[in-house]
Formats: sequence, structure tokens, C-alpha cells
Amino acid sequence: MTDAYREWYRGRRVMITGGLGFIGSNLARELADLDADVLVVDSLVPDYGGNLFNIAGYESRLRVNVGDVRQQTAMDVLVRDREVIFNLAGQVSHIDSMTDPLTDLEINCRGQLTLLEACRHHNRDAKIVYAGTRQVYGKPARLPVDERHLVRPTDINGVNKAAAESYHLVYDQVFGMRACSLRLTNVYGPRQLIKHNRQGFIGWFIRLAVEGGEIQVYGDGSQLRDFVFVDDVVDACLRAGATDVVNGEALNVGGAQPISHRDLVQLLIKVAGGGSVRYVDWPQEKKAIDIGSFYSDSTRFSRAVGWSPRVSHEDGLRRSVDYYRAHLPHYLENPA
Amino acid sequence: MTDAYREWYRGRRVMITGGLGFIGSNLARELADLDADVLVVDSLVPDYGGNLFNIAGYESRLRVNVGDVRQQTAMDVLVRDREVIFNLAGQVSHIDSMTDPLTDLEINCRGQLTLLEACRHHNRDAKIVYAGTRQVYGKPARLPVDERHLVRPTDINGVNKAAAESYHLVYDQVFGMRACSLRLTNVYGPRQLIKHNRQGFIGWFIRLAVEGGEIQVYGDGSQLRDFVFVDDVVDACLRAGATDVVNGEALNVGGAQPISHRDLVQLLIKVAGGGSVRYVDWPQEKKAIDIGSFYSDSTRFSRAVGWSPRVSHEDGLRRSVDYYRAHLPHYLENPA
Repeated sequence: MTDAYREWYRGRRVMITGGLGFIGSNLARELADLDADVLVVDSLVPDYGGNLFNIAGYESRLRVNVGDVRQQTAMDVLVRDREVIFNLAGQVSHIDSMTDPLTDLEINCRGQLTLLEACRHHNRDAKIVYAGTRQVYGKPARLPVDERHLVRPTDINGVNKAAAESYHLVYDQVFGMRACSLRLTNVYGPRQLIKHNRQGFIGWFIRLAVEGGEIQVYGDGSQLRDFVFVDDVVDACLRAGATDVVNGEALNVGGAQPISHRDLVQLLIKVAGGGSVRYVDWPQEKKAIDIGSFYSDSTRFSRAVGWSPRVSHEDGLRRSVDYYRAHLPHYLENPA
Repeated sequence: MTDAYREWYRGRRVMITGGLGFIGSNLARELADLDADVLVVDSLVPDYGGNLFNIAGYESRLRVNVGDVRQQTAMDVLVRDREVIFNLAGQVSHIDSMTDPLTDLEINCRGQLTLLEACRHHNRDAKIVYAGTRQVYGKPARLPVDERHLVRPTDINGVNKAAAESYHLVYDQVFGMRACSLRLTNVYGPRQLIKHNRQGFIGWFIRLAVEGGEIQVYGDGSQLRDFVFVDDVVDACLRAGATDVVNGEALNVGGAQPISHRDLVQLLIKVAGGGSVRYVDWPQEKKAIDIGSFYSDSTRFSRAVGWSPRVSHEDGLRRSVDYYRAHLPHYLENPA
């Protein structure tokens, strides 16, 4: 009974945009294990998270279509027979969004509208689960942050992700479609991009620990975050996709317990048995878009679908370290 | 002393995007009267509000540059020496945004980012006043709506206007620029587009009254709105442009007193001495994006800059009716 939502995916026709990326590929593998009919769509833009190695061993159990959510004609065809669409494609670097805001707009707004238009005109019955982000809240006015908190993003990536989320809710409301958004906090785990440090610090820190390098923490490391392990996010996606109770909603999906950067890095170094830490001053351009402590309240989502995060920081970090230790060359700039 | 902010514009180099449109042209004329150095930029997209007749009599006192905010190279040049930029260009039809969301995105998001990028790279000192909208709030959870109310737009136009507003606040915060947004409610008055009814009902109702036609009100007309006359909005723009106290903020600019559609139409018919009213059922596609009663609380903006709306509904409607009666042919589909 507790796993009815997993059983529900057997033979289900699903599509995952950004399906060769971090969360997408973990979700794709899980869905293949549940015997779903999985279509992975990914643009494999260099410098982004898509990586064919992420589906190693699953090549014959998934269908991969290299394609871009900005391409209307491709999306019009691909969405046609899909019952659930996990919409995870996106530009995810805050930093890149500030140096090149127009590319962020194209991918995170135009791409999302293009996918939604494809569904509106060719498959209104699909259930769409959008990967939102806690970034839409910006600097929190209070902690923990629940969904009544104002949306006030502090960078262009956050603005565009907020818009994309809203598109989903508007299409749900106006066109009788079924869509929801999960506002994910800091997600970590195997298959994350770690070849550069512009897509969040946690993957980068894990790489440095695995390589025995020096981890630089800005300021005194006292800021709190609620990290969530990728398997817990995959579980959240599966639950959201299999139910209609969260349609038209944007709900927080965060970690169980907030932890400071300082404590997280100490734990990481302990688990990895390597790496070191140095506290450095904030770079000015990063300070400008930093939000201080942040952790979210996921009560609404938990109550709606019965989800809760199950993987501890220690376990999650160990699984991450083990994974990258085994497969590091595939995640470096020029993959082996 | 009370008019120091108006005096401040003498010789000031200002730019108005969408400056041949409804609010833009009223603002341009006022600024010319204040002896500002006025650059009007407008794309004159057919079907939108730009209309050369809107600056009739002022041609020699303004500089008009036909150009589109989506055109980076043009904006890079035009912004260079401007001290205040009133950024009013936009696609404003809710209806059009639902039939063609990608065009709305291009104009309201990409165009705005393009203008901001031009300022970031070529004129960081400019003060930018963005024409936001109460649409960003969507269906109100409580009345009156103040700035603590969640942003939950119910149509694509509202989503994109919310994103564009946020871009301004992010550029203010991150790049040390100076920008604010005024969330305007239902604005009416001379020089509004009335050649079709897809840009809000009030202009369309005024046209029908002037033509002695039948005004169709959806439902029972009991919904409340706070209408604000365009001269009051022009005054709000002038105050916001001349001060730094509202930088980085998005503030409501609404009418003094809410009034029902029913009462407004009755007043309009009385003032015009013509036209009739008929109550009809809601068309389904309009009902889907309707928000019920809405009126805003402009206390924060009023306190910050000393603004309050001064033109009564009766006076505003009379001035509107008189204007269109005198100049109607210039506002029809094939202008004389």
C-alpha cells in the first residue's frame, strides 16, 4: 500500500526533460527500475549537467532523444503520448544567469513555455511536474520558509525560474491541464555536475574532498541550508507525478534538518577521509546575490503526498563520495 | 516646495519607452511642458497602443526614435546619456498573452532584459521607473491588496510582467543601479488604445459610450476595481523618477476609491449622455482568467513620495469622453 505510487508507474509512458542531467538521470534510472516506459529528452548543452554516463547500464532500458525544450516542433512530437512529464530541463547556474541573463531567459522561460504550448496543443492530459527552486524566495524574511513567504528572487535565474513555475500554474488553471511545481532546496548526490563550480557549491565541495583538495568556505560558514539527497527528490517527483492532489500548486521540497556550511564541510571531510577547509572572505559578486541562512518548511508537500526525506547527511555524503570516487573521470572537464 | 519634483525635470534628459502609447505619451507631453529633454522610444507595433497622434502638437518639443526594446544595439545607443528612463514599453493584453504567450515573453521579458543590459553596460547611473501592474497579484486573497500580498498571476501577461519587474529589482540590488516598479491598477484617460477591446475594458467602454453603443458587462457588474486617471499616474511616475527613496521597491499605485463595474458604467453613461448597458454571461475564456474584485492599497507609495490620486471618477470620465469625442477618428482601426 505504501508503495502504490511506485507500482503505478509500471508501463506508464513518462518523459523527462533534462533527463541526462543530475536529478533527471537519477529519476530516469528509478523509473526504468519500476518498469515505466521512459523517454529521456536532453539537449546535452556543453557546460550544463547532461552527461550520457549518467545512464550507464540503462541504455537499453530507456529511450534517449537529444533535443532542446526551446524547439517547438520537436516538443510537439515528443509530448504526444506521454502520461507524465517530469520537466527538469533548465539553466541552473545563478552565476551564469548574471553574466548572460538572456540565455537564462531563453532556456528557463522560452523553453518552458514551448514545452507547455506543446502539451496544450498536443497532449492536454499529461501530468507535468516542474522542478522549481527555493531560489524564488530570495533572502528569507523568516525561517523556516513556507509557501506563504513572498517570492522575491535575488538573481536572474531565480526570476526566470519563478516565471517558469508560474507558467505551469497558469496552464493548469486556465487550460484545464495538470501541473505542479516542487520548490527544491539544495540537492546533492551522484550524477551531479562537478566539472566546474558555477552550479552550486555542494557538488564542487564533494569533488574537492574526493580529490583531497582545499574547500574554500565564504565567511565563517555559519549559514544554514537544508540539503536534500537526490534519491529523496526522486521520491518526491514520483509521488507528485502519481497524484492529482498537488495540481496547480508550488510546494517546498527540502531537507529534514538544516545544517551550517561549516558542519557540512566537516562531515564531508570526515566521510571522505580527505580534503581540507579554509575560510575566506566573500567575493563581492557572490556576496551581492547571497541570501544568508535558508531552510524550508516542506510540511504542505509532506501532508499532501506522504513524503519525507529519509537519507541522512552522513549517508548521503558517503554515497556521493563513493560514487564520484568510482567514476570521477566521467565527471571532469574532458570526460574519459 | 510641493512642486520641487516637477521643477527638477527642467533640462533633465529623460527617455520614455512606449512613449507613443497611452501612459507614455501623456507623460511625454507633461515632461515637455516641464521643459525636460524628452526622448520618446516606441516600436509602433500595429495593434498595440503606440499612436503618433498621441503627441500631436508636441512634435517639435520631443525627439521620437522608432525602435524596439528587444533590439540590443539600438538600446545600447539610446540609453547612453539619459538621466531618467520611464520604462513603459510592453505588450499589455491579457487576452493576447494567452493566445500567443511567446510574443508576450519576447516583449515583456526579453525586451526588458535587453533595456536593462543596455543600462548595465552603457549607463548605470540612469534612474529607471518601470510600469508594473496589479496583475502580478492575481486573484486577491484579501482586500485591499498591499505589497505583502503574494504574487500569483493568473495569466501569462501577469507572469511576464512580474518577471520584468523582478529584473529591475535585481539589477538595482546586484549592479548598483537605481530602479523601481509602480504596480499600476486600472488606468484610464485620453490617448488609450480603443481600436479593439483586448487591452482592458475601460477604454473600450468609453469608446462605446462616445459612439452611443451598448456596453456589455459580464456577470452582475458587482466586482470592484480601483481606477486611476492617467494624469495621476503621470504624477506618480514623475515623483518616482525624481527620488531615490523608492529604489529597489515595487509599490502599488491605485485609485482612491474602489467602484463596481456597474456603478462605473452608470456614471460613464451619465457623463457621456449616451450609450447603454447590458449584463451578459461571462465568456468562458475570460472567466478563466478573471480575478473577481480587486483594489489596492497605495499607502506605501503615498507615504514615500507624497502622491495621492486627485482626479475623481466623474471628472476623469468626463475628460476622457471629451477627448475621444474630439479626436475619435485618430483612435479607430484605420486612423484618419
